[in-house]
Amino acid sequence: MIRKLNEAIRRTGAPIVVGLDPNLAFIPDGIREQAFQKHGETAEGVAEAFWQFNRGIIDAVHDLIPAVKPQIAMYEQFGLPGLAVFDRTVRYAREKGLLVIADAKRGDIGSTSEAYAIGMLGATSVGNSEIRAFDADFVTVNPYLGSDGVKPFIQVAKKRDKGIFVLVKTSNPSSGELQDLVVKTADGTEKPLYEVVGGLVETWGADAMEDGYSNVGAVVGATYPEQGRILRKIMPHAVILVPGYGAQGGTGANLAHFFNDDGLGAIINSSRGIIAAWREERYASYGPERYAEASREAVLAMKEDIHGAV
Amino acid sequence: MIRKLNEAIRRTGAPIVVGLDPNLAFIPDGIREQAFQKHGETAEGVAEAFWQFNRGIIDAVHDLIPAVKPQIAMYEQFGLPGLAVFDRTVRYAREKGLLVIADAKRGDIGSTSEAYAIGMLGATSVGNSEIRAFDADFVTVNPYLGSDGVKPFIQVAKKRDKGIFVLVKTSNPSSGELQDLVVKTADGTEKPLYEVVGGLVETWGADAMEDGYSNVGAVVGATYPEQGRILRKIMPHAVILVPGYGAQGGTGANLAHFFNDDGLGAIINSSRGIIAAWREERYASYGPERYAEASREAVLAMKEDIHGAV
Repeated sequence: MIRKLNEAIRRTGAPIVVGLDPNLAFIPDGIREQAFQKHGETAEGVAEAFWQFNRGIIDAVHDLIPAVKPQIAMYEQFGLPGLAVFDRTVRYAREKGLLVIADAKRGDIGSTSEAYAIGMLGATSVGNSEIRAFDADFVTVNPYLGSDGVKPFIQVAKKRDKGIFVLVKTSNPSSGELQDLVVKTADGTEKPLYEVVGGLVETWGADAMEDGYSNVGAVVGATYPEQGRILRKIMPHAVILVPGYGAQGGTGANLAHFFNDDGLGAIINSSRGIIAAWREERYASYGPERYAEASREAVLAMKEDIHGAV
Repeated sequence: MIRKLNEAIRRTGAPIVVGLDPNLAFIPDGIREQAFQKHGETAEGVAEAFWQFNRGIIDAVHDLIPAVKPQIAMYEQFGLPGLAVFDRTVRYAREKGLLVIADAKRGDIGSTSEAYAIGMLGATSVGNSEIRAFDADFVTVNPYLGSDGVKPFIQVAKKRDKGIFVLVKTSNPSSGELQDLVVKTADGTEKPLYEVVGGLVETWGADAMEDGYSNVGAVVGATYPEQGRILRKIMPHAVILVPGYGAQGGTGANLAHFFNDDGLGAIINSSRGIIAAWREERYASYGPERYAEASREAVLAMKEDIHGAV
């Protein structure tokens, strides 16, 4: 699957993933009102508004970018109707030729991790039937439980030509609280925990390579460019999924070190900066009704910002 | 909510939580066949089998124990029909007077963690309506992203009289890969990462106390009794949720140090050992049709094992 992602990055010239993290505050009044008229102020109403909003964004940007990244928490908070729209969004994005990264940050042990992997990337055989759950192309994975929590995801990914991104150094202010702690390793050297996890990502990924890159990628926040530079070297075969650009403070200038010399090796996420672009002053002329066109403009501006920096 | 859990532990005399982690292999043929006759070999068929199985277990054990712990991964792998039965199981267990720990190991940053917390424990206001998602009493949380990933869960828990359990030292064989790494702390001392996380749990929980215990609990595996002894001292106000008893190798003799002198402070999970008891030789006389009675016997045996050790 990482080959397909790299091909799509080359084809579009845009190492960009759009985060489909809908929030009622981002959704133009017209869409919201229509959904509530139909379903009332219910979870179904919110889900309908999310769906119409997402579809507009996907229709407007699908030719510009390789992938979208729905954050499942935004859907899960509205229960089953919310998750039904997560599912519908994943399917629709794939129909439109986009790859889908399920941002679910799952992680457990053994057979439970396998169940999560099947839930996001796979299918289960029951008797003579194959039962699919959510059918994303990649899922984000939390490494705190160690190898036997991560490897079942890799096994399912290999079996189904999918991939994963492991949290290494996250974009949030307190990510350093555990991730930056200096640890003593078996060989007597000292290094921050995120470097240990980066080393594990490279090791885990050695067994899942395609054309020079691994189906085991990493998450490293744009807000930590210096750590990105170091992790780029520790994980030469990992594609780095980079959140934190835009709303969280990361800029194009912070991104150069996340890429390899071949121009690949990183894909930059922006969520609010794209999907809520219509609310920004610079895109105000679009108005709420043309929110999706504002998103398209914001993708083009982001592409230019990244090309200027890399 | 932790007060209610402690009261229920006192009332039942059983610091036991039954893990509702259904698996087709655990489900008696009769239930499975009836569900597949009705729905075919589909996700709906599996979900129906899970529901009938769970209901039987809950009916058989609800008066003996304070809580159940459905592992959401087992449901998520069957997509929306699976998650609908997760929801139904949570509701039914609460109707029967049980507390419910959603074992979801969620964790993200800021507003995304808040969305996960709302998804598992809370409700969202939309206009004049309150929209509930999954309505468990506790959720398990992964600490890798640090305080700003965990605190939104605590905020939502406080607002709705709920609680959380933070992963500290997990029961799996490779949990030590990251969790046991020796880190250098700000004051120059060295300690394993799980002790740092244990310290954070105690700090986070100080603001969410009820009757001497905190609504911020911890997960520490029965398979690591020595670490349990140390963590018991580091987190005197945390209730420890202890997985790994039974199928994973932990025994009653390993459990003494997880409890405080007041007899509280720990709740021991068993999943397969209870729900698949009918497949064990010692309960063979029940046969598959009386699987729920075998589960009841297994709970009573577990209670005795714990009382013998503590």
